[in-house]
Amino acid sequence: MPSNIRIALDAMGGDHGPSTVIPGAEIALERHPDTEFILFGDRATVEPLLERQPRLKAKAKLVHTEVSIRMDDKPSQALRYGRWKSSMWLTLDAVKKGEADVAVSAGNTGALMAMARFNLKMIEGIERPALAGLWPTIKGESIVLDLGASIGADTGHLVNLTAMGSAMARVLFDIERPTVGLLNIGVEEVKGLEEVRQAGQILREGHFPHFKYIGFVEGDDIGKGTADVIVTEGFAGNIALKTAEGTARQFAQYLRGAMTRTWRAKLGYLLARGAFQTLREKMDPRKSNGAVFLGLNGIVIKSHGGADPEGFASAVDIGYDMVRYELLAKIGESLSRDLRETNARAAAGAAS
Amino acid sequence: MPSNIRIALDAMGGDHGPSTVIPGAEIALERHPDTEFILFGDRATVEPLLERQPRLKAKAKLVHTEVSIRMDDKPSQALRYGRWKSSMWLTLDAVKKGEADVAVSAGNTGALMAMARFNLKMIEGIERPALAGLWPTIKGESIVLDLGASIGADTGHLVNLTAMGSAMARVLFDIERPTVGLLNIGVEEVKGLEEVRQAGQILREGHFPHFKYIGFVEGDDIGKGTADVIVTEGFAGNIALKTAEGTARQFAQYLRGAMTRTWRAKLGYLLARGAFQTLREKMDPRKSNGAVFLGLNGIVIKSHGGADPEGFASAVDIGYDMVRYELLAKIGESLSRDLRETNARAAAGAAS
Repeated sequence: MPSNIRIALDAMGGDHGPSTVIPGAEIALERHPDTEFILFGDRATVEPLLERQPRLKAKAKLVHTEVSIRMDDKPSQALRYGRWKSSMWLTLDAVKKGEADVAVSAGNTGALMAMARFNLKMIEGIERPALAGLWPTIKGESIVLDLGASIGADTGHLVNLTAMGSAMARVLFDIERPTVGLLNIGVEEVKGLEEVRQAGQILREGHFPHFKYIGFVEGDDIGKGTADVIVTEGFAGNIALKTAEGTARQFAQYLRGAMTRTWRAKLGYLLARGAFQTLREKMDPRKSNGAVFLGLNGIVIKSHGGADPEGFASAVDIGYDMVRYELLAKIGESLSRDLRETNARAAAGAAS
Repeated sequence: MPSNIRIALDAMGGDHGPSTVIPGAEIALERHPDTEFILFGDRATVEPLLERQPRLKAKAKLVHTEVSIRMDDKPSQALRYGRWKSSMWLTLDAVKKGEADVAVSAGNTGALMAMARFNLKMIEGIERPALAGLWPTIKGESIVLDLGASIGADTGHLVNLTAMGSAMARVLFDIERPTVGLLNIGVEEVKGLEEVRQAGQILREGHFPHFKYIGFVEGDDIGKGTADVIVTEGFAGNIALKTAEGTARQFAQYLRGAMTRTWRAKLGYLLARGAFQTLREKMDPRKSNGAVFLGLNGIVIKSHGGADPEGFASAVDIGYDMVRYELLAKIGESLSRDLRETNARAAAGAAS
């Protein structure tokens, strides 16, 4: 492991580009001084911002490029005009060339996924990438995947998601054998869940050294923290994530409304301000910003496009942890002989 | 329309059976005095409870049966021992025979769906049932379907869900032309969404007199109230619902924790008690209890199995509204020539 963690940043990514990325990197550097950065972006925009952060400037190299990926372009468009030369591509390419240990971008998700796949390639044995995120729960945090990197999942992919997600949990939560639940719905004997049921059977019957399968879980188990890792296919996972975000915002809005309606409520709010502050921090989506693309030959972190510097710093932190605690090696372990056998069994089951 | 709404109740359904159903019916009767009930259940258990509610007793007929469906049986098991004679079957059968206008049960969802389908049959043109629920939003309420009656949906079924959901919105919200959004995820050019995209195209290009299609929506749009009706297939819909419930409970628990940690917070809570009460009512899942099975030749309401009397009464209220405002006739209208043509187009598109 290198003594410094080398982080490549797409300085132009996200809704606010370098005006978020540069101060975000500064916050992350304060927390992890054993970090150095390579920034890819437009010199004219990035350099003045960097001048204001002398500590970051001393630990960062700026590589100029004029091309940046727009937030609403389709992946195919982005690849056409952005391959080889955009800030996003070059950020990923730094990982590919071994010049950086991790790539972080707040840019267009679809484009980032397409470029990462194209440039870094998939790990042997994994066909499709996954997007894994941290979900705040009553007990702490869980990892949920796939959050939308691919739609639909066959049995083998669900088993692979389990291996990748549990490897990430070992890295982030420092648990030797994380628990894993497979997201399902409560209605029995409904058609169409063959993949989920088949994956459940494989996970139940296998003996996996790197995780402990606890069975099917439902949507409300995620927030309860029933399992360290929740596995689902990307369509349902993305909808679960966005729905939870929407519900949290809805609750916060109700609460604001309720606390300003009468003078008694306003006074109560003033008295309990500290408690509300704690609550706000607990529900702060910025703290759990930063999803990890799994299955690639390299570590790629996606920050929310609308993140502020604090949120972007959280995404950089996750990247730091992934490198420091050797995510890729741990995924490799989980995908070792044990799981290859399982995949073969899954393939045989699907074929029969 | 009958002068009285005739409601058949599965008195044995739910986690608490008649001890919830009977007082729940009493609450519903207070709100809608133009109601009469047929109760199906075990006389020895139900009658003493009914004696305590003289007003309800005067408006209710009790039909004795010793067979009731267990909450955790599979639908096939339930059909085996419960067909023709269980309280659940007889409740549905009262609708089938025209003795009641609506059936309400808090029993086993899978069994209720199987029996309803078997006994009442599907509306012509609809192949699969749907479960539609009321979702509290910032703006008021929206209808979300399918919440898990069936898994996976082809283009035609998504279009049918739109017709059924918008008919329900016309009945419940009294809007001439409700808005409809199709639930999707934000990642572009990801494979596997052909049905959703195809349904989107049909809904965009068609001119539907009974609803207004507003395009794709994401998970966080549900709570914002972006559309009156949100359409999705059952797996994602069920996971969205359960995840939102889990998040709301999580937030409530954080809030309780925060407001009891210090004496200032406790005092603030006391002062703002009225505001917290309003908030609690706003987030109260009991108020939106009662999902509607759509697509059947008859109106069937599913109450949450764990509902208390107040929650069960909400489910009865929904059944009342569905009859009073002629849901079945309105679904029929929406499924008229206009939509049949669309279904044919969808079928042609899927076949090509």
